Amino acid sequence: MALRVTVWNENVHDREDPRTQAVYPNGLHGAIVEALQKHLGDRATIGVATLEQPEHGLTEEVLAATDVLTWWGHVAHEQVDDAVAERVQRRVLSGMGLIVLHSGHLSKPLRRLLGTSCALRWREADDREVVWTVSPGHPITAGVPQAVVIPRQEMYGEYFDIPQPDELVFISSFSGGEVFRSGCVFKRGQGRIFYFSPGHETYPVYYDPHVGRIIANAVEWVGAGARAAFDTTTCPNSPTGWFEKL
Amino acid sequence: MALRVTVWNENVHDREDPRTQAVYPNGLHGAIVEALQKHLGDRATIGVATLEQPEHGLTEEVLAATDVLTWWGHVAHEQVDDAVAERVQRRVLSGMGLIVLHSGHLSKPLRRLLGTSCALRWREADDREVVWTVSPGHPITAGVPQAVVIPRQEMYGEYFDIPQPDELVFISSFSGGEVFRSGCVFKRGQGRIFYFSPGHETYPVYYDPHVGRIIANAVEWVGAGARAAFDTTTCPNSPTGWFEKL
Amino acid sequence: MALRVTVWNENVHDREDPRTQAVYPNGLHGAIVEALQKHLGDRATIGVATLEQPEHGLTEEVLAATDVLTWWGHVAHEQVDDAVAERVQRRVLSGMGLIVLHSGHLSKPLRRLLGTSCALRWREADDREVVWTVSPGHPITAGVPQAVVIPRQEMYGEYFDIPQPDELVFISSFSGGEVFRSGCVFKRGQGRIFYFSPGHETYPVYYDPHVGRIIANAVEWVGAGARAAFDTTTCPNSPTGWFEKL
Amino acid sequence: MALRVTVWNENVHDREDPRTQAVYPNGLHGAIVEALQKHLGDRATIGVATLEQPEHGLTEEVLAATDVLTWWGHVAHEQVDDAVAERVQRRVLSGMGLIVLHSGHLSKPLRRLLGTSCALRWREADDREVVWTVSPGHPITAGVPQAVVIPRQEMYGEYFDIPQPDELVFISSFSGGEVFRSGCVFKRGQGRIFYFSPGHETYPVYYDPHVGRIIANAVEWVGAGARAAFDTTTCPNSPTGWFEKL
Repeated sequence: MALRVTVWNENVHDREDPRTQAVYPNGLHGAIVEALQKHLGDRATIGVATLEQPEHGLTEEVLAATDVLTWWGHVAHEQVDDAVAERVQRRVLSGMGLIVLHSGHLSKPLRRLLGTSCALRWREADDREVVWTVSPGHPITAGVPQAVVIPRQEMYGEYFDIPQPDELVFISSFSGGEVFRSGCVFKRGQGRIFYFSPGHETYPVYYDPHVGRIIANAVEWVGAGARAAFDTTTCPNSPTGWFEKL
Repeated sequence: MALRVTVWNENVHDREDPRTQAVYPNGLHGAIVEALQKHLGDRATIGVATLEQPEHGLTEEVLAATDVLTWWGHVAHEQVDDAVAERVQRRVLSGMGLIVLHSGHLSKPLRRLLGTSCALRWREADDREVVWTVSPGHPITAGVPQAVVIPRQEMYGEYFDIPQPDELVFISSFSGGEVFRSGCVFKRGQGRIFYFSPGHETYPVYYDPHVGRIIANAVEWVGAGARAAFDTTTCPNSPTGWFEKL
Repeated sequence: MALRVTVWNENVHDREDPRTQAVYPNGLHGAIVEALQKHLGDRATIGVATLEQPEHGLTEEVLAATDVLTWWGHVAHEQVDDAVAERVQRRVLSGMGLIVLHSGHLSKPLRRLLGTSCALRWREADDREVVWTVSPGHPITAGVPQAVVIPRQEMYGEYFDIPQPDELVFISSFSGGEVFRSGCVFKRGQGRIFYFSPGHETYPVYYDPHVGRIIANAVEWVGAGARAAFDTTTCPNSPTGWFEKL
Repeated sequence: MALRVTVWNENVHDREDPRTQAVYPNGLHGAIVEALQKHLGDRATIGVATLEQPEHGLTEEVLAATDVLTWWGHVAHEQVDDAVAERVQRRVLSGMGLIVLHSGHLSKPLRRLLGTSCALRWREADDREVVWTVSPGHPITAGVPQAVVIPRQEMYGEYFDIPQPDELVFISSFSGGEVFRSGCVFKRGQGRIFYFSPGHETYPVYYDPHVGRIIANAVEWVGAGARAAFDTTTCPNSPTGWFEKL
């Protein structure tokens, strides 16, 4: 059965910034959809939702029919309605996979789910980024070389204020000497989260075939948990022996 | 230098419920303070704060002067001001230790810091709880037998909706057959959190010498990180070479 | 492509102990093969290897053609050749999945891979075991109720001397009051390991449909990493820039 | 009570290689002892043991009286007696702290305790190493700047074949673009292990005050678990109710 993917994009740079339009004429979401389609084919059906839509395109119905949500945002995090952010959080706890990309580290859903500030250091100075696999054999790394070289990138550096990941998959270096935990898996409730830092609105990173492969691999990885085994978010009074006949 | 501990109590059962008053005439906070004093002596200075105080007794000044905060709440979680809950969260991220006891699993600070629902199963039926050490040699377990038997306790059972702990220290069984991850350490930002489930407003659990020892050990453990190494919650633009002269 | 599974059995009780023969007339391996076939169908091809075969049936050729190895042993751990144990260890590091069952906790391959004594407490007294899911949504738990009740089992109790698992999936209680981390995932090198404690040579546990489902799910889970991304066990001198053209 | 520290050195370069003698006239162990004395003062008593001594200076008596063992080895790992390596492993499982430095990654005790190959990439080309704190507030990082710059070092690069650490404390970058998990805590049995990669026999790294501070901090951290709570390496048959009177 095909995974149901929703690609969410803030879609502000894409509409307002000529530099982004020059690199991503179909929007950042367009490039991400294209990469997923290339790698996943009919193993996924892909929809798009954006900030300017009613409820940001993330109604209860859309989320209920989403196995994996990808998230890109940067300059408009505060315009995301708290109720929608909480809805995404709840849907992850009940099994939906979530992939947060690049500047989404400060998005409301990720900060709510991780509980930390998700702050980091940054610099726009055309650093070279090298993305190193530190969990070889992990399905997210399938078909990806041990070191992926991205010629020009925004620097994201430690300290990155996140909980220790359940699985640390990638660590990046930058030509300025910084390091960054650039690929991290977290399990929260019944859902899996993958944070992946490469990608920026003025660099063509989402066209890199290795980056596309990683995001597509991650869709399949976090999607593997996209079903609720049982309700895990209420506190049932449970009489002695309640479980005898499960 | 003595650890500065603040014992926070919701203090509602203690004022309104004769069953609690019969067991804890000095309040739950009174019993907790007594246990800490017995085990820590002059290694700690201990203050008390409660819900009914202005800002619940947790002003910026009080938190800035607190190395370790212990938290007991049950029926009035929603009466805790969001601003105070966020203040506690930020203070943990900058290094304060936090110990959350029993029904505090649903408190605002813990849920904000962990990002999950923190839901669990429960039953008040005089179950016997056995608290098993699964991390022997861990300082929180110092002087505590491998199995601590609590003759009567409220049952707290899995599934407990928390992220996988950084350190799982205790697992409990209950006579009804349930299990529970009853002692969990989480690191969030620069602070350490210990959740410990034994303890209830109508059972004399906080007078158990092993329980007191565990909470006192935990104060010293989470207090060991109670200093901010550097600001970790803002996103500094960091020019190339910024770190050369640290 | 079907997963290539090898079911390894010590095969001593099966040949010598009438009590085992009464419960498992086709051997423990026979029951395990049957459970895997039922749940995996043509998604797996399954072979059997046993202690008494040359090289215990685990030649370099067999292991190279094995994606997932399951291991059952009890009374003859010391008869396993060190060279074969080391071969299994190396094959896991290069990507093979390994599932160790019940008394295999003391097997040479597991102890070599985990580095600890893997000791535990035990009792044969017809305890009831309840296996609790503590990672709902995890693929190993798919289709399995939150609590699996096994009416009669050997008690395996804490302290279980293992490293903290990468993923803790199941915790068991026993009617005597003990708890046990009964389902644990470890990643070592490029391979995944699942230890699962239910199952004993004189109880019909491997016929339990939930137990069969769990082992089959685990085969697919640890098999997902069964390919070497690159050589990870040698120390290459790596000149500056070696990775530029990967 | 002072921590009892034993500094172990292979002591081969120190006796045979003029380049090492030029940098470390008192041996690598001499520099390590000096750094520990400076930072720990009378909080530690420090002994030295070396490869060429009977039983490599690590008799049962010495280990029983050691709370923390530091290990430096490089060219003579295979000359370490298997019985001594196993003795060190057992002593860690029963609570001794172990700090493994630099090329000790391939030492017998560490490989036995971790179960992986501990292989890595390397290069001697005067790379600059920057050691980044990724767990601020951790006691091992106390007093250490967020980035420690080591002007010239041997490059140690990923993939480093270790289990995922229980706590990842430092990540290093090298001027050639590599990254490395350079500070890792593992708990095994009742003991804590800290692996720390900076330090080489021909670079004056052990005189760096930050490096000295880190190793001294680590001695106190892994030493905090240096007592056996109970025997964890045998498998006691445990009759029903055995724990009632602990």
